[in-house]
Amino acid sequence: MSPPMSPPATLAALVAAIEEPDAAAAAEAQRRLDAKTKPRRSLGRLEDLACQIAGVRHTPAPLPGRKVIVVMGADHGVAEEGVSAYPREVTAQMLLNFARGGAAINVLARHAGAEVVVVDMGVAVSLRDLAPAGDIRVERIGAGTGNFARGPAMSRAEAVRALETGARIAAELAAGGATLIGLGDMGIGNTTASSAVVAALTGAPVEEVVGRGTGIDDAGLARKIDVIRRGLALNRPDPDDAVDVLGKVGGFEIAGLAGVALGAAAARVPVVVDGFICGTAALAAARIAPRCRGALIASHRSVEAGHRLVLQALGSKPLLDLDLRLGEGTGAALAMGLCDAALRVLAEMATFTAAGVSDSGA
Amino acid sequence: MSPPMSPPATLAALVAAIEEPDAAAAAEAQRRLDAKTKPRRSLGRLEDLACQIAGVRHTPAPLPGRKVIVVMGADHGVAEEGVSAYPREVTAQMLLNFARGGAAINVLARHAGAEVVVVDMGVAVSLRDLAPAGDIRVERIGAGTGNFARGPAMSRAEAVRALETGARIAAELAAGGATLIGLGDMGIGNTTASSAVVAALTGAPVEEVVGRGTGIDDAGLARKIDVIRRGLALNRPDPDDAVDVLGKVGGFEIAGLAGVALGAAAARVPVVVDGFICGTAALAAARIAPRCRGALIASHRSVEAGHRLVLQALGSKPLLDLDLRLGEGTGAALAMGLCDAALRVLAEMATFTAAGVSDSGA
Repeated sequence: MSPPMSPPATLAALVAAIEEPDAAAAAEAQRRLDAKTKPRRSLGRLEDLACQIAGVRHTPAPLPGRKVIVVMGADHGVAEEGVSAYPREVTAQMLLNFARGGAAINVLARHAGAEVVVVDMGVAVSLRDLAPAGDIRVERIGAGTGNFARGPAMSRAEAVRALETGARIAAELAAGGATLIGLGDMGIGNTTASSAVVAALTGAPVEEVVGRGTGIDDAGLARKIDVIRRGLALNRPDPDDAVDVLGKVGGFEIAGLAGVALGAAAARVPVVVDGFICGTAALAAARIAPRCRGALIASHRSVEAGHRLVLQALGSKPLLDLDLRLGEGTGAALAMGLCDAALRVLAEMATFTAAGVSDSGA
Repeated sequence: MSPPMSPPATLAALVAAIEEPDAAAAAEAQRRLDAKTKPRRSLGRLEDLACQIAGVRHTPAPLPGRKVIVVMGADHGVAEEGVSAYPREVTAQMLLNFARGGAAINVLARHAGAEVVVVDMGVAVSLRDLAPAGDIRVERIGAGTGNFARGPAMSRAEAVRALETGARIAAELAAGGATLIGLGDMGIGNTTASSAVVAALTGAPVEEVVGRGTGIDDAGLARKIDVIRRGLALNRPDPDDAVDVLGKVGGFEIAGLAGVALGAAAARVPVVVDGFICGTAALAAARIAPRCRGALIASHRSVEAGHRLVLQALGSKPLLDLDLRLGEGTGAALAMGLCDAALRVLAEMATFTAAGVSDSGA
């Protein structure tokens, strides 16, 4: 068994290309862990993580490899409703900060030994002239989405294009040797779009999926809830069609990140999901292609209110619970360190036999 | 203000040498974090961690430095009561495994960029002839403790010697440039000794502080509870005198690790505490010198039942919750990666001003 030779060109082909993880490889990884000099299962979730990665990568002994965090940025028309503590231009400013290496995600990715790929999926102003070519990958679907309180955020065709763009990037990274792909986001207003997507996909009441994002006050929170309610009533996204939901109330980066998750899963590369925004993208991906779920690794539990529902809907238990609410892929970067630790335990620890240690079988 | 020039020679001098963390340095670290390109406090507990380390190290901008995990091993007379799933010789076998680099702690320490210092605090058989000189530091207080179900585990003088030995090792490491010290343990029977120490120090019912250790069955668990009850009734450790408790029902490695925590705190070096055994040692240290508490970093929440009480008594919230129950310092090694991540955020992230990003003040 080997992964597909060339990446699937369309969304339908992509969905068809995603397999379930290899249960035999995961079971063999657990057998190998059980022979190591430690009580059985005493490394708990680190052992689960090693076995999950073995299953996704279809090998009982995956080694740590090339780690890449794809950080997608885009602007949101809904930001004009006053749902964020920050002005809209911060999206572009932060993408430039990522390109220069000064943001939290750059620091934490360096610490994890991961590369950062910054993608402009559609900020309001073009960054082409501001950043040296190559520092920001330009895959603009448009100059920010439409305000979903007044109409659809984007067309269905744009949602599909964003998904296919993300999948293509993941396929390229996998072909280039990436063995672990992290998801990161940037977009002023994107907790509002994510809350709308989660409310639509899960049917949860809007007030349960809305939080304070980067730090709005009580009035802002009430406004955010109202805007999402109006947007859902106006656009009527179909809860059984995640592409429809992403298009009507999502964002270019959210759809793009869902595409990255699908593309990585199709290429047998595990996906480390950041917090609420990336979790929302992962949930949309899992609705589009349920078989991708096995490839998803939830990095951390965000303080953003809606994340709890996302994790529940995905059946994921996050590795870290550090009260993070920054996004950018920062939680994913931290969790990548745990993924490598798990794989190194599997690869490097001595067995009871080799070390001459008495095994109780416990 | 600078740390003491030479390490304190006695336990009393050691306790007197421990200061509270520097609140001004911690507050200045938070101010610097607040100027970075991210919403205020959006890195949550990672920011707390950076500030805590700044306070302990008495500098607003501590850099990641030399990390060392001190893994102390010793045997326990109480093991003869059948309280462990493993035979007693495994303690020595595992110390040799540590010295050869094949154990989980070696793998995870390498991953964290930390050194491992293996200390024989008193295994039943001497390892002097089995490991090349230097691979295992020999600080034997005795050839294993006495069985506390039949008498005291050790004398008070031995408990003090174990504490002072640990403190001396920490002082040497700090003088050699260590900026972060982790605690790790090995000792067949040492969850039984730790449960006895925790029951004595906290007054909690024995059945609440006892777990399955490396994996005993129901009969073994009942036996363990009975042995601890008998040991406490027989030895009557004084709950207000942690040295008395360590001596009567503790272990050489548990007392030694409490000493490492005290010595590190006196040298302004933060201490990353592993799970139940090391947490018990840290609790004893905090009872001996309450000012050391600020230097303690709880790495993970162990599945071992008594750990919950230890964390509660210390007022610590662990960084990781990965269902680990191995010991050896494995949780401490994983948490060291988070400590370095926190310090790198403080040191390397761009400010709003430098990056030209609009700050909402949120």
